[in-house]
Amino acid sequence: MSLTLAQARNVIDAALAKGRADSAQPLAVVVLDAGAHPVAMVREDGASLFRFDIAKAKASGALGMGADTRVLAARAASNSVFFQSVVAATGGRLALSPGGVLIRDVEGAVIGAIGISGDTGDCDEACAIAGISAAGLSHGDMK
Amino acid sequence: MSLTLAQARNVIDAALAKGRADSAQPLAVVVLDAGAHPVAMVREDGASLFRFDIAKAKASGALGMGADTRVLAARAASNSVFFQSVVAATGGRLALSPGGVLIRDVEGAVIGAIGISGDTGDCDEACAIAGISAAGLSHGDMK
Amino acid sequence: MSLTLAQARNVIDAALAKGRADSAQPLAVVVLDAGAHPVAMVREDGASLFRFDIAKAKASGALGMGADTRVLAARAASNSVFFQSVVAATGGRLALSPGGVLIRDVEGAVIGAIGISGDTGDCDEACAIAGISAAGLSHGDMK
Amino acid sequence: MSLTLAQARNVIDAALAKGRADSAQPLAVVVLDAGAHPVAMVREDGASLFRFDIAKAKASGALGMGADTRVLAARAASNSVFFQSVVAATGGRLALSPGGVLIRDVEGAVIGAIGISGDTGDCDEACAIAGISAAGLSHGDMK
Repeated sequence: MSLTLAQARNVIDAALAKGRADSAQPLAVVVLDAGAHPVAMVREDGASLFRFDIAKAKASGALGMGADTRVLAARAASNSVFFQSVVAATGGRLALSPGGVLIRDVEGAVIGAIGISGDTGDCDEACAIAGISAAGLSHGDMK
Repeated sequence: MSLTLAQARNVIDAALAKGRADSAQPLAVVVLDAGAHPVAMVREDGASLFRFDIAKAKASGALGMGADTRVLAARAASNSVFFQSVVAATGGRLALSPGGVLIRDVEGAVIGAIGISGDTGDCDEACAIAGISAAGLSHGDMK
Repeated sequence: MSLTLAQARNVIDAALAKGRADSAQPLAVVVLDAGAHPVAMVREDGASLFRFDIAKAKASGALGMGADTRVLAARAASNSVFFQSVVAATGGRLALSPGGVLIRDVEGAVIGAIGISGDTGDCDEACAIAGISAAGLSHGDMK
Repeated sequence: MSLTLAQARNVIDAALAKGRADSAQPLAVVVLDAGAHPVAMVREDGASLFRFDIAKAKASGALGMGADTRVLAARAASNSVFFQSVVAATGGRLALSPGGVLIRDVEGAVIGAIGISGDTGDCDEACAIAGISAAGLSHGDMK
């Protein structure tokens, strides 16, 4: 199963709704397919310029390493040398903060990822998970 | 006046509606603000992988040179040496085919650009213009 | 259906066998999945250093544009300005010579691509097609 | 003596066999020649997207610094500032985790390197060494 544009837009709309409900700072939201290629992206009015790049690097980092960026950021805290070398080896495609979340289909297969940047990592991640759930998809470590 | 996310989404929705009405090939659509930063982007199911990069390079190229890519492609046909040097100097931020169209507010000021790739340059551009017009914005050379 | 490593290796082995049977120059052969990520790659002894990069750019170019590089090279011959801008916009991920061939499953869906460089474009392409066919997969324009 | 494709394939096949025997996570395996150019590469089904980049950066890092990445990672733990500057200076061609192992001929001369990523650094390295040994080649610090 591939992530469709219709699904990606549902994920984004619900993530933005969560952000507005929680009075989050302006967000950038990126949804990538399983191959880490962009499906849909939005940047809210007032979001600063790096937010898109950071959101994209959260989503691609989750896909590239096979884990949400919350998990990766925790690993990096105790092994920063390795993770910084991964950041360099991949041309900066990994942002080490919560908010990059794998998107899974009902069988648990990874079909893409969402990345959000703009507020705290915790808030960004909460919006990401709200978006995935509202679209009827699954997230996180299924193992 | 800045291009808002709400406006960008209206432009994209109308451009996609035009594409579907015309049975266009699957399209990638990118809307950039006046600083050439992404505001919103979608890639239709089945669009090949470079379509996002090309759509973005059409939009950024229009902003970067101050003219729609139809005009730039025509100039490049008779002066390819210069335009290839621009492509190189800008790291590939100019795609020389119709489909990159400046977005203007009611006073004619450039507030962003749309880039579309997926079908012929003519079709891509028609969808771009349809999107801008449906959103109540203006396009093209006002001089 | 995803392209498996086992399938990619069968494609490569048969492509190399064709190359040796035809006394081709030393070849580099790259197989990418549908997201343009490497699955398997080999470089024959004596192949010059750019062969891997060129083979990869043939495969990624076919996937990125949705057509074999023979078709793309022919289009580029009459519209070089656009195709050179695509090369730049995609960071050099398109090599404009035959030898980049889409790999399709039995239903015709694109599941990856093979790129070969080392001999003439015609020879490279013949080896690519031989590899795909021997692995029980399909190639080329199904429309 | 140069590392041949036949040797590289033997190294890879034995490394993958070790990984399967040990129930390792899906692996990416890269073999580079003495000039750090790819000879052969495979990515097992299910390996996450960065595994190829990390495996390659382990192999090129071992060659670039003249030591296995286990040694380099240990040095980096106590001198991260220097090693991060090396990572930056080389464009990310050094991944600081075990699994990048120099390949030597029977006289001890470096003829290439293998890099593996997918499981823990210890497991990746064990598979790398198993591959080199099975192919009748030598590894590690001969000085």
